[in-house]
Amino acid sequence: MPTASPVLDSSNLDSFFSPRSIAVVGASATPSKIGAMPLRYLIENGYAGQLFSINPARPEIQGHKAYPSLQAVGQPIDLAIFAIPVSQVDAAIADAAAAGVKNIVLFSSGFAEVGINGEQAQRRIAAQARDAGIRLLGPNCLGFMNVRESVYATFSPVLTTGTAPAGNVGIVSQSGAFGAYAYGMARQRNVGISTWVTTGNEADVQVANCIAWLARDPATKVIMAYIEGCKDGVRLKAALAAARAAGKPVVIVKVGRTELGAMAAASHTAALAGDDAAYEALFRQYGAWRARTIEEFFDVAHTLAVGEVPANGKLGVLTVSGGVGVLIADAAADAGLDLPALPQPAQDLILERVPFAATRNPVDITGQVTSDIGLLELAAHTMLREGGYGSLIIFLAAAGLTPTMQAMQLKLAEGLRREFPGRRVMFSTLSDPVQERALEAFGCLNYPDPSRAMRVLAALEFFRTQTASAAPESAPGAPVRLLATTYNEADALDLLHAQDVPVVALRRAASAEAAVTAARELGFPVVMKVLSCAITHKSDVGGVVLNIADEPQAAAAWERIHANVRRAMPDTIVEGVLVAPMVRGGVECILGVHRDPVLGAMVMLGAGGVNVELLRDVTFRVAPVVHAEALAMIGEL
Amino acid sequence: MPTASPVLDSSNLDSFFSPRSIAVVGASATPSKIGAMPLRYLIENGYAGQLFSINPARPEIQGHKAYPSLQAVGQPIDLAIFAIPVSQVDAAIADAAAAGVKNIVLFSSGFAEVGINGEQAQRRIAAQARDAGIRLLGPNCLGFMNVRESVYATFSPVLTTGTAPAGNVGIVSQSGAFGAYAYGMARQRNVGISTWVTTGNEADVQVANCIAWLARDPATKVIMAYIEGCKDGVRLKAALAAARAAGKPVVIVKVGRTELGAMAAASHTAALAGDDAAYEALFRQYGAWRARTIEEFFDVAHTLAVGEVPANGKLGVLTVSGGVGVLIADAAADAGLDLPALPQPAQDLILERVPFAATRNPVDITGQVTSDIGLLELAAHTMLREGGYGSLIIFLAAAGLTPTMQAMQLKLAEGLRREFPGRRVMFSTLSDPVQERALEAFGCLNYPDPSRAMRVLAALEFFRTQTASAAPESAPGAPVRLLATTYNEADALDLLHAQDVPVVALRRAASAEAAVTAARELGFPVVMKVLSCAITHKSDVGGVVLNIADEPQAAAAWERIHANVRRAMPDTIVEGVLVAPMVRGGVECILGVHRDPVLGAMVMLGAGGVNVELLRDVTFRVAPVVHAEALAMIGEL
Repeated sequence: MPTASPVLDSSNLDSFFSPRSIAVVGASATPSKIGAMPLRYLIENGYAGQLFSINPARPEIQGHKAYPSLQAVGQPIDLAIFAIPVSQVDAAIADAAAAGVKNIVLFSSGFAEVGINGEQAQRRIAAQARDAGIRLLGPNCLGFMNVRESVYATFSPVLTTGTAPAGNVGIVSQSGAFGAYAYGMARQRNVGISTWVTTGNEADVQVANCIAWLARDPATKVIMAYIEGCKDGVRLKAALAAARAAGKPVVIVKVGRTELGAMAAASHTAALAGDDAAYEALFRQYGAWRARTIEEFFDVAHTLAVGEVPANGKLGVLTVSGGVGVLIADAAADAGLDLPALPQPAQDLILERVPFAATRNPVDITGQVTSDIGLLELAAHTMLREGGYGSLIIFLAAAGLTPTMQAMQLKLAEGLRREFPGRRVMFSTLSDPVQERALEAFGCLNYPDPSRAMRVLAALEFFRTQTASAAPESAPGAPVRLLATTYNEADALDLLHAQDVPVVALRRAASAEAAVTAARELGFPVVMKVLSCAITHKSDVGGVVLNIADEPQAAAAWERIHANVRRAMPDTIVEGVLVAPMVRGGVECILGVHRDPVLGAMVMLGAGGVNVELLRDVTFRVAPVVHAEALAMIGEL
Repeated sequence: MPTASPVLDSSNLDSFFSPRSIAVVGASATPSKIGAMPLRYLIENGYAGQLFSINPARPEIQGHKAYPSLQAVGQPIDLAIFAIPVSQVDAAIADAAAAGVKNIVLFSSGFAEVGINGEQAQRRIAAQARDAGIRLLGPNCLGFMNVRESVYATFSPVLTTGTAPAGNVGIVSQSGAFGAYAYGMARQRNVGISTWVTTGNEADVQVANCIAWLARDPATKVIMAYIEGCKDGVRLKAALAAARAAGKPVVIVKVGRTELGAMAAASHTAALAGDDAAYEALFRQYGAWRARTIEEFFDVAHTLAVGEVPANGKLGVLTVSGGVGVLIADAAADAGLDLPALPQPAQDLILERVPFAATRNPVDITGQVTSDIGLLELAAHTMLREGGYGSLIIFLAAAGLTPTMQAMQLKLAEGLRREFPGRRVMFSTLSDPVQERALEAFGCLNYPDPSRAMRVLAALEFFRTQTASAAPESAPGAPVRLLATTYNEADALDLLHAQDVPVVALRRAASAEAAVTAARELGFPVVMKVLSCAITHKSDVGGVVLNIADEPQAAAAWERIHANVRRAMPDTIVEGVLVAPMVRGGVECILGVHRDPVLGAMVMLGAGGVNVELLRDVTFRVAPVVHAEALAMIGEL
């Protein structure tokens, strides 16, 4: 198991995200200026800590005394917000270091995103800050907000159109633009935010650090992370492990899933992309749900914010339209969910009231609900009580807008929550924001398109089974030091054998006589292969003889292999032959390891032989792979 | 090409959907009654035709004189709405027949949906209506609305929560509940409706008839159809062909895409499901877009309602966030779309203004747009002018809520529409309903999740290429009458040959001598196979000999085949052997025809041999298959 790197000790970010004092460097009185905005947001939203304006040209800004420098403040400063041009950053960091500032948010652009010179400048200021013991967010970022504590260390204009409520969802975004978008989305959905961070160029603090901090933040229950590229896979792994250990689901958007996306990314960012299959494996393995769309990103987080992961994976569908029941079943199948049948006595109970209902699951109580609204309660309670469904989706067509049905929905939501804690109830109907907020208070979301709910339930099921599975074990034994050379087949198999990987019995033979003896001792039939680290495709050069039945054939095979290889590759050093029993049956597969530039050692398992190319039936994991994961890999093929 | 069945002559539905006079049978004064609602809706919404209430128990209802029967009206009645219990339907139809009523909407339930007895009753009333020359919608349906003409022949409670605007989208739904839901959805999105129909049990009028009528309705531009099951594939094919011929895109939801869905459907409806692959083929072939989710159903229809199919398939992406540009590229790849590069001179033009922009496509003008909003216009105009993109999506993150950007969006939308007619511009940003309505007036929709826009663009591209491709040709030649027997291989190949399908040269041989002669004339090597319509797996019984090189081998092969077959299947009639040249190379594939219970003859093409089972690499079309479709089938493998 990866241990937290020192840099991931997230406790040292407490004074960053929860500062008792803030100084705005480059504070401005001109409302449109970047230096004016954080000050305005902090004041307007009632930041309770100490607030200092730094501007050598003015005595006072936005009603606050202005200081010529950080050093001139003469009091401890937890956080300095730098709203200054790139040319002034060096001097300002020196000022901050001298003033004992603990943390800096650096809005300024003009660093790594503009090319080589900017990258050098970024490295320089990162070192400068590190040497002074200062943590740095940015450069080229929109800063952060700790909504609960009214810390608005950002200049994002999104706040000019309103603020989001305080809540339990932490949002981390590498991109400022996406971060602002996510903030606005959350606000539109009335999703409460704990802390919102944009990390920009990540000279010091990365998305991973923020995830790790949110994992220990008591105000945060759900973590949303938007990632474009990652420089430090170890940090990311440790952060995801910390969130899982804290029982906090992480929902991730990582762009560049496709070749077209990777092409677009190449022209956007200099960050190492890494292989997308590696990220996919990482997220699955470390229990983070990767959302494929922005809508899904919010749907999953929103659902987790208002309630729990259901107690079991059984899904019940209750509908007033049989056809939409079928449509929901289609969407459930797409999402990999099953619809276990309602027990027969429970079905009979519903049939008593609606003789022509479909009652297996989906349960279709038909349009009769219009004249007998109590049917809905009967069916829902029966399904949760007798069917034991962990989740229930209720499709009500257009009825969710009528006052009668709205009242029934609330009564139902309240009753089901009281009687069946640990279950999740979702609605799919036309609705209005007031009703939806009221339902959310009982943990019920409304998804007008039930397919969205199915995708969310797939995510909940992922998190549920995550919680159930054990944390990754540590890799057994000491690491194996590989030589900087190509191993021949026999040496490679010996190496695996030494690590308790079962391999086929084998003998090396340097002469025809030795080969014959080896074959006799192993027992016929045997196979013989040329041994040379210079020959990759042994069959192609006539270096393999199968089905050797007796000693004369073995001697002949030795000669034939040497003759073939001499002819095909006259200059190659042949180290002898490898003799092994002829193995039949079994399933051919390929097991490999490669090093991803970002995420490190990756284990690959694939259906073998010619099928690897044809079927692309392969699966990946970040090393080390625990026993349960290995079984899961086999299951995935 | 299927010709329109007489029953699909949709002109005879004009008096149905556009009636000059309406009678409500079972009209009620009690507001909660089904008989009260259509009357109320018709009056409230100002239906301009003549309106009669039929109720033998009252002299007046809702301010209208009530008549004891349809016959008592004594004036022509285009449409009678039956809001009466099932027990009164027979008598009411007799009354309608006597009164010369042209069309009936039958709300009543208690027919095919309740079992065998109901099914018989339904057949009876259908015959009764047909004999009287009356068209029938329902039973067990929610009726219809012609929104433009204020014909509200429905009792759906969805109207109690508001009405949708009149517009150019026709909606047909088999399900009443879904129909009401769709109506409410359209209203929430401000999508204008032309005519809305629910078909229920479809004793007479089917979804197909409604599609065909909407195809000729001048008020309708886009057709949305929700289908659970279909009884008459010929009618559906003809309707889709009519819509395509009229240049009206059809967007379809057909439930039961998956096995789980089919299972749910089996317990919901007695309608023949048919094979989903057949529907999938039908929709693709007849140019209807099959939406996979309700959201997509509306996204596609909404987009088509406010603008045209773009002039070409080239997609440009303009973004203020490089990362979201990548995300959009991912979504484009998922939707099968490509992002052709902007020509270099155009890229240079943008780079002049934003030196660190990504300009290939996606074009990322970065956060600099905040301080230089004109950049957006420059980039958008440059992309449409120089890049020639048929569609452009513009991602603006949270900026769509600020007044400056909202003004710019409108200016941009108006300018681009004027300068580049036939192109489609979409936004992806936070927005509000007022702004969205204003943008729609210029043909621009806003999709907060750009992935939704990509799926829509895939649909537009589907429709665009549909329009470009020719209408299906008629099947060449006269139909072939097959005998009610199993053909042996030689007879089957002869049959294909007679239809100009190239087949391998072949000879029948009834004796060893004949076989030798046939082989000599064909030229060695040959293959010899037993000829018997009773033997399906010829190799399994030793009935095939390959690679016959000369005359003695040919004679021996004849004997061997007969001996083998006699041993394996002593009682089987052997009709001789088939001799054919030994063919090598080529690609093995399988071509088949089967009869779908609903859609008729289906053509199947698959990658052959063992791969058919392993890869499931097959594709289907509804017969007849035109040349271009055949090429497309090959391309899909």
